[in-house]
Amino acid sequence: MIRNNLSSSLLSDAVDELSALPGIGRKSALRFALHILKQPKENVERFGRSIIRMREEIRYCSVCNMISDTPVCPICSDRKRDRTVVCIVESIRDVISIENTGEYRGLYHVLGGIISPIDGVSPSDLSIDSLVKRLEDSETEEVFMALSTTMEGETTAYYLYKKIARFNLRVSTIARGVGFGDELEYTDEVTLGRSITNRQPFMPVNQ
Amino acid sequence: MIRNNLSSSLLSDAVDELSALPGIGRKSALRFALHILKQPKENVERFGRSIIRMREEIRYCSVCNMISDTPVCPICSDRKRDRTVVCIVESIRDVISIENTGEYRGLYHVLGGIISPIDGVSPSDLSIDSLVKRLEDSETEEVFMALSTTMEGETTAYYLYKKIARFNLRVSTIARGVGFGDELEYTDEVTLGRSITNRQPFMPVNQ
Repeated sequence: MIRNNLSSSLLSDAVDELSALPGIGRKSALRFALHILKQPKENVERFGRSIIRMREEIRYCSVCNMISDTPVCPICSDRKRDRTVVCIVESIRDVISIENTGEYRGLYHVLGGIISPIDGVSPSDLSIDSLVKRLEDSETEEVFMALSTTMEGETTAYYLYKKIARFNLRVSTIARGVGFGDELEYTDEVTLGRSITNRQPFMPVNQ
Repeated sequence: MIRNNLSSSLLSDAVDELSALPGIGRKSALRFALHILKQPKENVERFGRSIIRMREEIRYCSVCNMISDTPVCPICSDRKRDRTVVCIVESIRDVISIENTGEYRGLYHVLGGIISPIDGVSPSDLSIDSLVKRLEDSETEEVFMALSTTMEGETTAYYLYKKIARFNLRVSTIARGVGFGDELEYTDEVTLGRSITNRQPFMPVNQ
């Protein structure tokens, strides 16, 4: 319906492409397209080219699989980071989220997914062999598993735990508990139950 | 903060560009970029090129100013449409919205904006001269003003009304009233007041 009413195949094509972005319907795609039509040609050219270039030229770090412009990413090459801890995450986005907290100074290992029989993702689809190889000849002392607190996350964590047991490393996982700003009343029972079992020493903060 | 943590200038550049889309913050832009990275190269190339091409090659109808791939747009060239009515709208998007209702079969004239002293938009910035010229030598019998029901919309409507008075055409405007599905309780007083003054004959609909 909308397609025929756009009165221009150039506009229709662009709207089709933009509506393939995640969470973007045809209405938002049309809004994007009409906004783009109002921009100077050079800006639109730069917009389109930067996206094509990103996809064409992106590289992944040969150590941790993070996105990188160089063979080894800035985090893996940073000598000031704590090289004794490797944080295992599902995706690139998780690295960005953890970096944004400013609370972690170790290294990473991006699995590229999570074990999920339902979605047909088995351990061999993930970069687990490269992790094991990496742990064999590195200064790692602790493996910190920052995986989702879902069934798939727990399965993956357990699989990895077994896989790396022979290295005798300290294995940690992100703390589970009641989220910051959450009300107890609305916290699910499993989370609340675990946060009681794993209760922590109270640390007063100066306001 | 996020910028430095993206670990790739290719990714940062793409996120910068994507976050310039209307209503898109850096978090959504990053989601778009990571989604794009997972697509086949050909698709991303087509995505980028379709946007650049739209901006480069888009044309506007010489009659009504609507977006068009041809010198005269499909609506203006459609001999089956009612050529005695011209609907005046602010923007391309309004044409698309009205076409989507399927309730209008006449022609259009896109002003390219609305008179707004606050935003520095004066009548000379809009395609009013071309409208007047168009009305001079056309088969138009009715001018239908489908402008926003804002102060600027009313101002523009009044200005146009004065400007085209000498043609002795029928001048109409979109019906104002309580929106479909609106509750009276939450309707503002001006709208409710006008919808009482302009009450219409009740037309029973077979359910």
